[in-house]
Amino acid sequence: MLRGSKIDPRAFVNPHGTNQSAVTELAHQVIDMLIGHLSNAAQLPLQPDPGSLMMVRFPEHPQPAEVLLPLIQQVLQGAMNPAHPGYIGHMDTMPSTAAFLGELVSAATNNNMLSLEMAPFAARLEDRLMRLLAAEFGLSPQAGGVMVSGGSLANLEALALARNLRYDIAKTGLFGLPARPVILASAEAHTSLRKAAMVLGLGSEAVIALPADGNGSLTAASVAQAIIDHRAAGNDPFCVVATAGTTVLGAIDDIAGIAAVTQSAGIWLHVDAAYAGALIFSTTYRHLLNGIHHADSITFNPQKWMYVAKTCATLLVRDRSLLQRGFRVSAPYMGEDPELVNPGEINIQGTRHADVIKLWLTMQLLGRNGTAYLIDQSMLLVQQFATMLRDAGMELAAHPTTNLICFRPPAASDATVTAVQQRLHHAGSAFFSVPTWHGQRWLRSVVLNPFVDVARLQTIVSQLQAVVADAL
Amino acid sequence: MLRGSKIDPRAFVNPHGTNQSAVTELAHQVIDMLIGHLSNAAQLPLQPDPGSLMMVRFPEHPQPAEVLLPLIQQVLQGAMNPAHPGYIGHMDTMPSTAAFLGELVSAATNNNMLSLEMAPFAARLEDRLMRLLAAEFGLSPQAGGVMVSGGSLANLEALALARNLRYDIAKTGLFGLPARPVILASAEAHTSLRKAAMVLGLGSEAVIALPADGNGSLTAASVAQAIIDHRAAGNDPFCVVATAGTTVLGAIDDIAGIAAVTQSAGIWLHVDAAYAGALIFSTTYRHLLNGIHHADSITFNPQKWMYVAKTCATLLVRDRSLLQRGFRVSAPYMGEDPELVNPGEINIQGTRHADVIKLWLTMQLLGRNGTAYLIDQSMLLVQQFATMLRDAGMELAAHPTTNLICFRPPAASDATVTAVQQRLHHAGSAFFSVPTWHGQRWLRSVVLNPFVDVARLQTIVSQLQAVVADAL
Repeated sequence: MLRGSKIDPRAFVNPHGTNQSAVTELAHQVIDMLIGHLSNAAQLPLQPDPGSLMMVRFPEHPQPAEVLLPLIQQVLQGAMNPAHPGYIGHMDTMPSTAAFLGELVSAATNNNMLSLEMAPFAARLEDRLMRLLAAEFGLSPQAGGVMVSGGSLANLEALALARNLRYDIAKTGLFGLPARPVILASAEAHTSLRKAAMVLGLGSEAVIALPADGNGSLTAASVAQAIIDHRAAGNDPFCVVATAGTTVLGAIDDIAGIAAVTQSAGIWLHVDAAYAGALIFSTTYRHLLNGIHHADSITFNPQKWMYVAKTCATLLVRDRSLLQRGFRVSAPYMGEDPELVNPGEINIQGTRHADVIKLWLTMQLLGRNGTAYLIDQSMLLVQQFATMLRDAGMELAAHPTTNLICFRPPAASDATVTAVQQRLHHAGSAFFSVPTWHGQRWLRSVVLNPFVDVARLQTIVSQLQAVVADAL
Repeated sequence: MLRGSKIDPRAFVNPHGTNQSAVTELAHQVIDMLIGHLSNAAQLPLQPDPGSLMMVRFPEHPQPAEVLLPLIQQVLQGAMNPAHPGYIGHMDTMPSTAAFLGELVSAATNNNMLSLEMAPFAARLEDRLMRLLAAEFGLSPQAGGVMVSGGSLANLEALALARNLRYDIAKTGLFGLPARPVILASAEAHTSLRKAAMVLGLGSEAVIALPADGNGSLTAASVAQAIIDHRAAGNDPFCVVATAGTTVLGAIDDIAGIAAVTQSAGIWLHVDAAYAGALIFSTTYRHLLNGIHHADSITFNPQKWMYVAKTCATLLVRDRSLLQRGFRVSAPYMGEDPELVNPGEINIQGTRHADVIKLWLTMQLLGRNGTAYLIDQSMLLVQQFATMLRDAGMELAAHPTTNLICFRPPAASDATVTAVQQRLHHAGSAFFSVPTWHGQRWLRSVVLNPFVDVARLQTIVSQLQAVVADAL
């Protein structure tokens, strides 16, 4: 159909092969620019100035394919730079090579995870790989799961499933319930839980924020007491969320203790292990997740500590058939397959990108040992970093449980904390995030980038000391 | 951190540039394999046999990067083949070159649409581009929107927004409402509406399926009567969904007429233009969307008729501030920016991939005229196809409104329809989907692939006639 239009022939790969070399050449140019940029990441700013936005318009006429190169150059210049070894401010890292090449393949083949028919290989691979991950967490042989575009959706689908199974309201809605449903979680739990409760019609206030202990962990005693209190008040705590890897501190709740409480109370246990779930692959640290095999559902995001490009998130459930019983909305326009339900019928999403490809490829390249190595190294580094920061006189919010650490110069004002962050950022030294936590600003670090090392952290601490001395 | 592990050094792009040429070479190999595959698409099967799944495991040891090539080869062999010009069975097409190269850039830079800080360029680009799209649909200067990973999420967020604004229940939940909330939509509307109502706690039965007319369109009279009836029954119709491009027939509801009804009744109008919203770019066909500028919210998916790789979906709202008033859940751990709210606070997702890059690049390459050209050509082709099918004695479900057409051999059993589909598929002629619609199976075609032409459709009809003659 391109004939007679002014569309550059390279705008589509001709399925008869007539532009193979021209498109290949263009793609090589993009690759060269991209890998060149990433290879220079340590020299580039930690965070760019977003700059002026060029060509935010829909041009009247088709543009020649060469225009892609300056436009992509602008995307690269305006991007957050998580590949910089000083970029240690968020749970976001550089992705593996396998991840971004896998994403390219997913996009170019454009299969649709809505149905088996529209993603013959990828839909089956996803089902199998979710069973494999569920087994890694020690769930039952009936366990499995779905992939979703980000952890907020995994938490949302988990809570919807727990709610539907508890009250059988999928068809008729949340009316006439004898008691108000509430969700118990740590005050340190992720904000996506409140968003989920809002979406679910429970109201964001249905998420009860229980205080964490000094390490930022929710205790079993606290959960047990809250169940008693809420039941006495006429509420129905139908779900408890334990977090493995809280947003600010990276803390891990007492999963085993909480599981004992939820099992005896007959309450759904969801473990939000979006971040720290990756510890399951480390023989050294998997004990931090003790009890996770008792979970009814688990959010786990390979997009974080498994170095897969985002989005790559999973919802694992202790029994695959629960998704059909508690969440399925069938679609008569789709084909049926006796082998497997169409993924779109048990997923909060419908049409969906094949995120599974980049996950699968990354798992092959890193292997379990390689993944564990990266995790163990970053756990070790953050312990060393904690020592350096204490020696430099910093106040720590808590001793790090995982590879996150929050600190601040003692008695500094929030303005000073932010000024320190900005100075280190603009000096090209390090990029910390500055969350508000317990009423104060903190410098937060996530030691995730595979190219951070002790020498880098030592340099950062020296620069930090100089900046703090100057700022206070 | 890779030192001392057995991880292939190419598993990550070293930010100090030490493996630039090695990673570039690997990426070129992947590109060559991928473009080679896509360039041969017309010779490959329309739909593969998914085959045996190789290496669905987490290997103990890291694998050498060369393993990517045979694994990607397997992904390609097992993928649905929408680039084949006979693949006309779904609303899924080949993506533009700009789309899959843009996706590669988004994945490799791994920015996070959660916050402005974590996607300095892309988050601002998304905001600006959503305002531009909203203006294309004729919404007010205050209009804008968000991108989400697929149309189901766009519909879900739209209905959540309409519900929250109507009842002010974002914090307190759906309890004690005086009347039962219902959503009015065509019986031909997308199944994601029922899924959304289930998730929202309204119950899937809250979506009232109103009968469509003979063309598959919902009429204003039908909506007006339903509002009267439901109010009389004590329900509260708080939202009407008009569809532009129904799933099976591609029909378009009477948007202008329905808008007049919802405006006078004070009811939110959501237009699910996921598919046919692209007609707005065609001067010839945009009249089919008359009245869409009255919508309170619109779902529009560039992942379909704009040739952008999935996912790429948008929720547009008549006033951007409504998303803050009716949907925002703030996240104190994120930085603040006086300029713009963090996208993750007004989006049903949190961490999110930068889908905007591939959309922006595709818009530049195609331009408005190029996009309109592709749309107009496919509209023309389907009209010619309808004539050919009628001349071949086929029964049409309805005369096509957009570029979808559903047909069947008259008086054929469902088994015969499916057999015809299978034979055409296995002969490499064409891939039709076979939805159940109004109690019968139909052969459904979506003439979307830019490399379909009249000669191809003539050949398909000849082969169809031969297969039908043999099967009946």
